Amino acid sequence: MSTHKFEHPLNEKTRIYLRVESLLRQAHAAAQFHDPHQYLLFFRALFDLLEIFEQIQLKSELAKDLEKQRQTYRAWLDVDGVDQATLRTLLDELSQIHARLMAAERFGQSLKEDRFLAAIRQRFNLPGGACCFDLPALHFWQHLPTERRQRDSQKWLNSLRPLSESLALWLKLTRETGHLKPQIARTGFFQSDAEEANILRLEIPLEFGVYPMISGHKSRFAIKFLYFETGQATAQDVTFHLAVCN
Amino acid sequence: MSTHKFEHPLNEKTRIYLRVESLLRQAHAAAQFHDPHQYLLFFRALFDLLEIFEQIQLKSELAKDLEKQRQTYRAWLDVDGVDQATLRTLLDELSQIHARLMAAERFGQSLKEDRFLAAIRQRFNLPGGACCFDLPALHFWQHLPTERRQRDSQKWLNSLRPLSESLALWLKLTRETGHLKPQIARTGFFQSDAEEANILRLEIPLEFGVYPMISGHKSRFAIKFLYFETGQATAQDVTFHLAVCN
Repeated sequence: MSTHKFEHPLNEKTRIYLRVESLLRQAHAAAQFHDPHQYLLFFRALFDLLEIFEQIQLKSELAKDLEKQRQTYRAWLDVDGVDQATLRTLLDELSQIHARLMAAERFGQSLKEDRFLAAIRQRFNLPGGACCFDLPALHFWQHLPTERRQRDSQKWLNSLRPLSESLALWLKLTRETGHLKPQIARTGFFQSDAEEANILRLEIPLEFGVYPMISGHKSRFAIKFLYFETGQATAQDVTFHLAVCN
Repeated sequence: MSTHKFEHPLNEKTRIYLRVESLLRQAHAAAQFHDPHQYLLFFRALFDLLEIFEQIQLKSELAKDLEKQRQTYRAWLDVDGVDQATLRTLLDELSQIHARLMAAERFGQSLKEDRFLAAIRQRFNLPGGACCFDLPALHFWQHLPTERRQRDSQKWLNSLRPLSESLALWLKLTRETGHLKPQIARTGFFQSDAEEANILRLEIPLEFGVYPMISGHKSRFAIKFLYFETGQATAQDVTFHLAVCN
């Protein structure tokens, strides 16, 4: 049976992390420039990331969170029944990624200092502002050989590597703390506790024709299912799978 | 020799027309949803169009401009040496397209009334705001069969058909009034008259490594060529082709 996977962040920080993960994924996918319009997705993702970096101190937040994960996993050293080899490999990885994160520039610093990117960033957000007359330098850049453009995009993306590897590891470890369990939302409604959780993961069978509206914060959350076609709350029972991830 | 084609609008109205043409092209190209990220391009183009429609009375501007072109071509009826059959076909086309434009709804009206589009439009412009938790209805929509999504996108794009066919015809006739002629920008600078012109079209050999910065308005314009790699004005002579279109 076909399902609809869904993630919901339970705090503002995780909300930003998931948005950044999604933007990094878009930027990487678009960076091949195989399609004549992919450059629009690529630069949009890059500039959205810069906007987020200007709004929050992402680097220190992420460093704190990785350190917290390291402390959690350290507590399992020398505990019976825990695979020590795997644990040590993970702790090494956490240490290395944390060290590279600490050594990294402020996120987006070199992108902000890039003359070409700075020149096109402002107008890029105008409605329809990616026309040649609005952004002549960008228009010229599109005429450069694909290899050159791929090299540029790799250089820009590489400057975000300490971010992407730290975020990927934190999200991976966070997601692994939760396990999908079957649940029923009676008359389309479900609520539960979520002590200190960060992410809810849901798998909802498509046959119900519903999507979730989730409200909640740290200790408690509620899920209401709405019909896609009408936008109205469903009154039917919805069976789904749920994982609460810390 | 490889060239770099460039267009520059000489008035604000034409600037909007070219942006709208570019957005319509993006929306049509992305509407197949062959690639998992194309929906982002599609909705971005659609919402950028709605923003433009809210800012200017595009329909009445375009109707006036088409009518002006019809008057111009009518003056050639019964003029010796003018192919009357071709002229009559064009005048018919102009009349039909003008009539469909006049009969059309206010541009974007049915898109604004579409519940699904209205629900996703606001959050779509947040940096990274296309995540499933920001736009759960959009996330569900992406799980619908491709044919259904293509049908939706065709319905939305069809509502813009009177705009796209009117604009395409006006731009085609406008572009045809100009003819590319060889020019030289001595020490990277060129200026000329452009009585009542709407669009400049340029073809610049890529080997110069330059892009144009164009200033000007209606009666006069100036082109300065800048090196892409440095952003500095070039002092070399640049040979290029230029068409001034009324």
